[in-house]
Amino acid sequence: MRYARVSVGGRPVWGRVRESDVDLLSGSPLEGAYDVIGTVPLAEAHWLPPVVPPVFYAVGFNYPRHIAHAGAATPDRPEIGYRANNALTGHRSPIVKPREVEGRFEAEPELVAVIGRTLRHATYDEAREAVFGWTIGNDISARAWQHADRTFWRSKNSDTFKPMGPWIETDVDALAQTTTLWVNGAVRSQFPTGDMVFDPFDYLVEMTRHVTVHPGDVLWMGAESTCRLEPGDTVDVEISGIGVLSNSVQLEGNQR
Amino acid sequence: MRYARVSVGGRPVWGRVRESDVDLLSGSPLEGAYDVIGTVPLAEAHWLPPVVPPVFYAVGFNYPRHIAHAGAATPDRPEIGYRANNALTGHRSPIVKPREVEGRFEAEPELVAVIGRTLRHATYDEAREAVFGWTIGNDISARAWQHADRTFWRSKNSDTFKPMGPWIETDVDALAQTTTLWVNGAVRSQFPTGDMVFDPFDYLVEMTRHVTVHPGDVLWMGAESTCRLEPGDTVDVEISGIGVLSNSVQLEGNQR
Repeated sequence: MRYARVSVGGRPVWGRVRESDVDLLSGSPLEGAYDVIGTVPLAEAHWLPPVVPPVFYAVGFNYPRHIAHAGAATPDRPEIGYRANNALTGHRSPIVKPREVEGRFEAEPELVAVIGRTLRHATYDEAREAVFGWTIGNDISARAWQHADRTFWRSKNSDTFKPMGPWIETDVDALAQTTTLWVNGAVRSQFPTGDMVFDPFDYLVEMTRHVTVHPGDVLWMGAESTCRLEPGDTVDVEISGIGVLSNSVQLEGNQR
Repeated sequence: MRYARVSVGGRPVWGRVRESDVDLLSGSPLEGAYDVIGTVPLAEAHWLPPVVPPVFYAVGFNYPRHIAHAGAATPDRPEIGYRANNALTGHRSPIVKPREVEGRFEAEPELVAVIGRTLRHATYDEAREAVFGWTIGNDISARAWQHADRTFWRSKNSDTFKPMGPWIETDVDALAQTTTLWVNGAVRSQFPTGDMVFDPFDYLVEMTRHVTVHPGDVLWMGAESTCRLEPGDTVDVEISGIGVLSNSVQLEGNQR
């Protein structure tokens, strides 16, 4: 099943994505049963981030080639960081590049696990069962700010820097897929989605030794490579079996 | 006015705190009008964190004495970090010290601004008007983890490490108050709440150059000093004009 959130009359509504339509739902599939209360054509859907997480977890270095490229040490244990909900934006909404950003402005294509159950002190198998489904994230990063600042607040969490979507796919072996990053229709990077140092379930086992994860929490799994973006570009992140997250890049002040 | 969230029959309900009772409200005062739908005696209230923020912002070094004590450089601009909602706990709920924690386990008494309006590109005056009210936070920190880890995930965000409450006070000049930290009834630290390098409105002006803050977001303002805690201790953070946030410390496994 593919679940999404779409904007209907300016309000967020959960949807179930079919071939050419989105069934509108009476409630969140993360919270149990729902009724179908309407439908919109797929082509007319206004896509929102498929979930607004209680906690937005993000992995840093997790792909061997990214680690080698950055000259970083391979992590010896799963350590988690955070991103911020203000930065989320949906499929087909613009990524706004602030006018102040100088230097590299980059995409990072990421697999995202969406949590479906409350979890603490989880085993690996319990962690597997607690993942509701999978979506796609693009961890937009302004490198000069990343290097100049004490935290990632504006380098990775400025408004629109975290496109996520288009939907949550519940029936896919996410770690057996291929991630592809396209810019303006040309492939810029391609890698096995599951080629990670620690997989999502390793992370959940380690995290839940100390924290409770809750339904709707998201876990962004890091990227294998990055790619420079310029205003006017269209950046697509595809994960086979899940979908394509597509966003244009617009310079601040030009987006309306 | 003092607004709180209390647990009634296992569900969170907003409340308006009076002398000896809490009026139960039909909705969030952050979202507009509400009706009074019941009442509970103040002494019987089960206090929840007064808000669960969309984004949980936290200031690091912001008091001259804390900066000097840590041997850190005085920040030349407001830079913001994050904490995680899983760690929130309410007034009178226990702080659980994990058995694995070694070394210093410390309290940090903090003023917390609760945002009431959507804000972007704010002036200082707009930032002042956007603060709905003020509450109290205790930024519990496990120092060995803080030094050993790449992020603050478990050192500052383990479950129960972020007591917040007891309520949101809307009518107080928060920066003119005194913060006092008590352990087992003895004063361990006392400082002028407003003796900050950058005040909450300075932060909001800088933050909203790049991020949109939303109603319910919280901004923890840092601490002037820290104090060691042991299992069995009761730690009270008082900010005059707001209230007292009180929590006991319990060793993991002993709390039930």
